[in-house]
Amino acid sequence: MTPADPTFETALKAAIDGKTKPPGSLGRVEELAAQLARLQRSLTPKVERCRLTIFAGDHGIADEGVSAFPQAVTREMVKNFLAGGAAANVFARVMGAEIVVVDAGIAGVPLDHPDLQSARIGAGTANSAKGPAMSGADLARALEAGHGFGRAGEAEAMAFGEMGIANTSAASLTAAKLSGLPVAAFAGRGTGLGDDGLARKIAVLERAAARTGARLPPEAALAEYGGFEIAMMAGAMISAAKAGRLVLVDGFIATAAAAAAIGIAPEARAAMIFCHLSEESGHCKLLDWLDAEPLLSLGLRLGEGTGALLAWPLVRAAAAMLCEMASFESAGVSRG
Amino acid sequence: MTPADPTFETALKAAIDGKTKPPGSLGRVEELAAQLARLQRSLTPKVERCRLTIFAGDHGIADEGVSAFPQAVTREMVKNFLAGGAAANVFARVMGAEIVVVDAGIAGVPLDHPDLQSARIGAGTANSAKGPAMSGADLARALEAGHGFGRAGEAEAMAFGEMGIANTSAASLTAAKLSGLPVAAFAGRGTGLGDDGLARKIAVLERAAARTGARLPPEAALAEYGGFEIAMMAGAMISAAKAGRLVLVDGFIATAAAAAAIGIAPEARAAMIFCHLSEESGHCKLLDWLDAEPLLSLGLRLGEGTGALLAWPLVRAAAAMLCEMASFESAGVSRG
Repeated sequence: MTPADPTFETALKAAIDGKTKPPGSLGRVEELAAQLARLQRSLTPKVERCRLTIFAGDHGIADEGVSAFPQAVTREMVKNFLAGGAAANVFARVMGAEIVVVDAGIAGVPLDHPDLQSARIGAGTANSAKGPAMSGADLARALEAGHGFGRAGEAEAMAFGEMGIANTSAASLTAAKLSGLPVAAFAGRGTGLGDDGLARKIAVLERAAARTGARLPPEAALAEYGGFEIAMMAGAMISAAKAGRLVLVDGFIATAAAAAAIGIAPEARAAMIFCHLSEESGHCKLLDWLDAEPLLSLGLRLGEGTGALLAWPLVRAAAAMLCEMASFESAGVSRG
Repeated sequence: MTPADPTFETALKAAIDGKTKPPGSLGRVEELAAQLARLQRSLTPKVERCRLTIFAGDHGIADEGVSAFPQAVTREMVKNFLAGGAAANVFARVMGAEIVVVDAGIAGVPLDHPDLQSARIGAGTANSAKGPAMSGADLARALEAGHGFGRAGEAEAMAFGEMGIANTSAASLTAAKLSGLPVAAFAGRGTGLGDDGLARKIAVLERAAARTGARLPPEAALAEYGGFEIAMMAGAMISAAKAGRLVLVDGFIATAAAAAAIGIAPEARAAMIFCHLSEESGHCKLLDWLDAEPLLSLGLRLGEGTGALLAWPLVRAAAAMLCEMASFESAGVSRG
């Protein structure tokens, strides 16, 4: 990250405070506008198109009974995305975003569909309660594939979503190893575990976490505990940020990918917008650790990029504020 | 309000829980969807168009120096709305909402503009620190004019905004008299008062509040302390709700109008969506008193309906969830 340029910052503050509104009265929208301006090095940032890339992958740790839904749901939901019936599809239509669906490593035989982008690293990860989720070579392939998706398309804003039964477990373990905090701090009910299910999940996660040291470098955390979709998303976030695009970070799993991406490439952070606070309990802890303040808090816990899509209009509004609002001078409005 | 119909409620819960997502995982969006469904008595509510009506009016209490901006700004900002340069215009374009601007009682000679709807009750209210802001007859005219605006147009969602220098003072006094709470609890910095200005404002508000009893009926609270734009908005909220339209409630001043509307017509409450929590300090207190949970919290304190516009995509997403998302059965997705 380059240090803020004082001339640019002065001009940016003058532009935002010169709009016909009391200074600061658009709150987080003004902060967003400033972030967009800095990212594009422009006082009139162009942010018109949003592309949601959903990475789907399966997880060996699902064998330990850590999810309320069967593993087959990953594949079934991918078919639902491709048919246009999932929440992410519906929200993308409402918000005017395009969707790309990626097979990052779904269990079983490869799905064949003209709209599915195949980047399969394998038929699901290995069970990270027993050994590494993936090899170092597979991690490198996942990150590299992600880089391609982060550079694809023409959109100025790149939202990333995921689908993968048991991936709150993978995200919890990844977050624990990145932060050095106990994995139980990041463990939640996922798709809807009851109290017994949650206790069982925490026991599995603690057993898995005990395989390695308290803290791991980002690549090692991803290889030992991540998922193909999480690693691919981290790669996509890094390359999207490097290309000067906005990165719309969704919920808990996407934030774990973002944390890994920041670990690998700290400069990617400046491109990230943390779109919402998930109801999944580990998300609040992870955002705190990242010192990130989410835009929305709507009790979502679905993933798929749904929270990022709901935040997208706020990003467009922030850009439009800078580009289209009149100034006190241009509108002939008296200052306070 | 009719009591909830158990057959409808069972069907509604089945429809929402049958969508391809863990039950409850869309949080507030599911609650919104249920509200829309109840309001339209339909499991596929139609919510496609949003109309923002901005009521502008001036306030005699501005003479007491309660605002950081001069009174002329009300008129200047109305010109800015008509020229398309204000935050509300920009957000409305981004969000696909139409805008109507109403002169409810701007100080000075009437503005002449083909797009301005004139419903002037007077050239600003009287100074409510010294006597009633308006007569009972003027209040009745303002409410009646509001009824017309609440019924106008074709939009399923009616957002209401306001412009009026010193109207946080009018809203604070109205809220205090509706709730019976001390006016200081609702007093904030408005467009940007410093500590001294805030202390002076509170002293003025306490002097004004002392003119009458601690609690007043809603019509009396509006006549003694409200504004032409606040009363007209209250009338519009009542008639919009009566017509089965959604009412998107903006920030502090709009919530004071909503509180008065609920006082006059309690059944209007069911149509209201409290769109955001304003940074203006009295808003949190007023929402608490109404037991209303806002959708967004973005540190806004601008008014004009800007917060309602930013929440509008969430409302569309909620309706689309019910109308367009696949069910577990239709998509062939396994349940948990």
